[in-house]
Amino acid sequence: MTETETNTYDVVVLGAGPVGENVADRTRAAGLTTAVVESELVGGECSYWACMPSKALLRPVIARADARRVPGLRQSVQGPLDASAVLAHRDYYTSNWKDDGQVGWLDSIGADLYRGHGRLTGPRTVTVTGPDGGERVLTARQAVAVCTGSRAALPGLPGLDAVEPWTSREATSSKTVPGRLIVIGGGVVATEMATVWQALGSQVTLLVRGKGLLPRMEPFAGELIAEALKEAGADVRTGTSVESVESVTRENGTVVAVTDTGDRIEADEILFATGRAPRTDDIGLETIGLDPGSWLPVDDSLRVDGHDWLYAVGDVNHRALLTHQGKYQARIAGAAIAARATGETLVAEPWGAHAATADHAAVPQVVFTDPEAAAVGLSLAEAEQAGHRVKAVDVDLSTVAGAGLYADGYQGRARMIVDLESEILRGVTLVGPGVGELIHSATIAVAGQVPVSRLWHAVPSYPTISEVWLRLLEAYRDA
Amino acid sequence: MTETETNTYDVVVLGAGPVGENVADRTRAAGLTTAVVESELVGGECSYWACMPSKALLRPVIARADARRVPGLRQSVQGPLDASAVLAHRDYYTSNWKDDGQVGWLDSIGADLYRGHGRLTGPRTVTVTGPDGGERVLTARQAVAVCTGSRAALPGLPGLDAVEPWTSREATSSKTVPGRLIVIGGGVVATEMATVWQALGSQVTLLVRGKGLLPRMEPFAGELIAEALKEAGADVRTGTSVESVESVTRENGTVVAVTDTGDRIEADEILFATGRAPRTDDIGLETIGLDPGSWLPVDDSLRVDGHDWLYAVGDVNHRALLTHQGKYQARIAGAAIAARATGETLVAEPWGAHAATADHAAVPQVVFTDPEAAAVGLSLAEAEQAGHRVKAVDVDLSTVAGAGLYADGYQGRARMIVDLESEILRGVTLVGPGVGELIHSATIAVAGQVPVSRLWHAVPSYPTISEVWLRLLEAYRDA
Repeated sequence: MTETETNTYDVVVLGAGPVGENVADRTRAAGLTTAVVESELVGGECSYWACMPSKALLRPVIARADARRVPGLRQSVQGPLDASAVLAHRDYYTSNWKDDGQVGWLDSIGADLYRGHGRLTGPRTVTVTGPDGGERVLTARQAVAVCTGSRAALPGLPGLDAVEPWTSREATSSKTVPGRLIVIGGGVVATEMATVWQALGSQVTLLVRGKGLLPRMEPFAGELIAEALKEAGADVRTGTSVESVESVTRENGTVVAVTDTGDRIEADEILFATGRAPRTDDIGLETIGLDPGSWLPVDDSLRVDGHDWLYAVGDVNHRALLTHQGKYQARIAGAAIAARATGETLVAEPWGAHAATADHAAVPQVVFTDPEAAAVGLSLAEAEQAGHRVKAVDVDLSTVAGAGLYADGYQGRARMIVDLESEILRGVTLVGPGVGELIHSATIAVAGQVPVSRLWHAVPSYPTISEVWLRLLEAYRDA
Repeated sequence: MTETETNTYDVVVLGAGPVGENVADRTRAAGLTTAVVESELVGGECSYWACMPSKALLRPVIARADARRVPGLRQSVQGPLDASAVLAHRDYYTSNWKDDGQVGWLDSIGADLYRGHGRLTGPRTVTVTGPDGGERVLTARQAVAVCTGSRAALPGLPGLDAVEPWTSREATSSKTVPGRLIVIGGGVVATEMATVWQALGSQVTLLVRGKGLLPRMEPFAGELIAEALKEAGADVRTGTSVESVESVTRENGTVVAVTDTGDRIEADEILFATGRAPRTDDIGLETIGLDPGSWLPVDDSLRVDGHDWLYAVGDVNHRALLTHQGKYQARIAGAAIAARATGETLVAEPWGAHAATADHAAVPQVVFTDPEAAAVGLSLAEAEQAGHRVKAVDVDLSTVAGAGLYADGYQGRARMIVDLESEILRGVTLVGPGVGELIHSATIAVAGQVPVSRLWHAVPSYPTISEVWLRLLEAYRDA
């Protein structure tokens, strides 16, 4: 029983979320033996408590808002959303929180799954404590990839534990619709979840420490979404009057949040969407001289500084806490591990096959709210902070024919940041109904470093919302 | 009364559709005096009888189909579309076929509008016959730009005139919903209008001479749309069994079309969507040695071969019969006219400011049906005909997470054509709900000549339909 089994692999991956899965996919494709260690569900946060359930919950909200903006159709879209059908569809998309499908996929690529808690117990060594308490030691000839992701970070508020607050996990997996919901935070999780639950029937109060929502995007993104949330009936409180929640308690089943201005807000549930922390506190980082609970800085091949066998991929490296960006890093890390294993020279220059260059210059993000907000690259403030000489041009999306045809009374805005020296784009932000699929055009323009002179030859189809591109180019030309 | 007024301008533009408007916009911006001649409505075919009304009619159809594919929402989308509201919205979008707004815009840029029929009466000379029969002669110091567009081409069928058939004009402007509608043709107008009228309550019979719909796109586009039209209740007859309509008559108000296989099809209206003819038959081409009624071949600056003062822009040059491509040509023609007027050297190499290079390599098109079909650049067949060494990779869109989240039971397909020598894209085709805004990403990739190695760094946001890009790149890598 206490005997410890030891297995040796080329690669050991800690964490079987989309990031770990993609690292394993690439190392397996290169013929490297690969073990994957997972303490919860294969598929990770994204599949069960983030992207998938949140989008399954948001899609009906967005589609309903879109339908109600179309003359001739709006009349036939009556009554509220069928919340139980929405929740059931969400359950379907999370496979009812069962991971058989993803386990089958890992098996199909020939990776070995170890269920249990994995901890580094020295260089190139991971010890897995299984559900039965048994231990197995995995040795990695080539690399260990830490892909353990992040968890919700809760503030140190008096009374918080006893309240049993929601985090992103409960907010995406709740089986019932709370009558009243307080949402603390102004980022993506807060705005998306406020949107969902208000639409499913909750009375939502959104408490934002800062001046506005989505502080990492251009200011108009948060402004337009805050306005829409208010129109949907949510109580949105931003700015200095509610700087922070001072205490929370649960009294007779009711949550009471007291703000620093003395306001008492009652609700049935309270969601803290106040940031993320790395899941590195209990993975044995101390055995190799690193700080438990810290983010893990990496180079562009996703290798941890100072450890030539250690990779940190996805949220844990704190480069860009987004599933798609983690998967991108995973493809590159997997390729880098494989190249180093065979002694191949890395293509490590910017935009090379082994350099996660997009992490610096071209990270895209879509916020699936109504209106949708989408951005790639730098905001104007970020571009100026980075010392780029840039010009920002804005377009009111309601002036684009395709936008007005998409939705009656269309409201939205676009901004393009042009580098004045290279005339390539540093960033693009789009806010409005239906822009979620449009941002990839900007992602290709930014990552592809397509200059403005060439973008004039990329003709948007008429009449689509994409014609905003023409308006942006005209605005830049005429500025 | 018979006295003829003569006015001299730098530029005379024949036709005030979007193309003529954009030529004038650019020549005016360059400080050139500009006259615009229009015999019908300022704003042209697109504003009153094509893009705008058709999209205003199609949007509710598409939005309803989308809404009914979303669990939790579909239950609340009941009954048919409100046809009268849809038609009223279409009327709003065509400004009730009044052009005051567009006349005001022409005025605002300082172009002079001449209402009447314009004909060339010699080099650099246009004679306008006004509504009152009065004539004015316009002389162009720099250039005449023919932007008269195209009209529906009708086949020479026995009995056709007496039937008063619909063309694209009647199909987009009808004030009533015919009980039964025959649509002849398999191109964009035919498929879009069959989609609209079937959804608004007509029983549509679509008769297609060829094997399938949308013959200029990848075959799967027409296949998926034909399937959807059949599911919507339309009678779609393609292939050799109905090769052509032999005769049409109107008997007691009912149209009867007899096919070459002897089938008699009865309907209330019949739409011929059987191609386009250039509106050059009565514009005085014979006075400068050109053939009336012919398309006008041009070089990449949109100048007519052999006439250094004559430009043909938009449909009339037969390069790409699409409003957005005509507007693109108009921007380039306007810039070329201005450059030549000032003796500036043209940037005439491919992708230069005075070369309509996208006409050859990167024409995008969106068909606003359910499902939407969108393509840019070359199809596989076209790329092979052009002698490119290419590889085509396909992706079933139902395998993309964002597609499944967008619509339950998502059906769609994507194809990417990669040039094996340069590893740039020759073409992309996307078919499925919600892909209309997605094609511009491909347009930027194709026009920007972004190589596959760089496209790997253009990360699609998760979970969007745009993640089809990742699947396409993987398919190419693993092929």
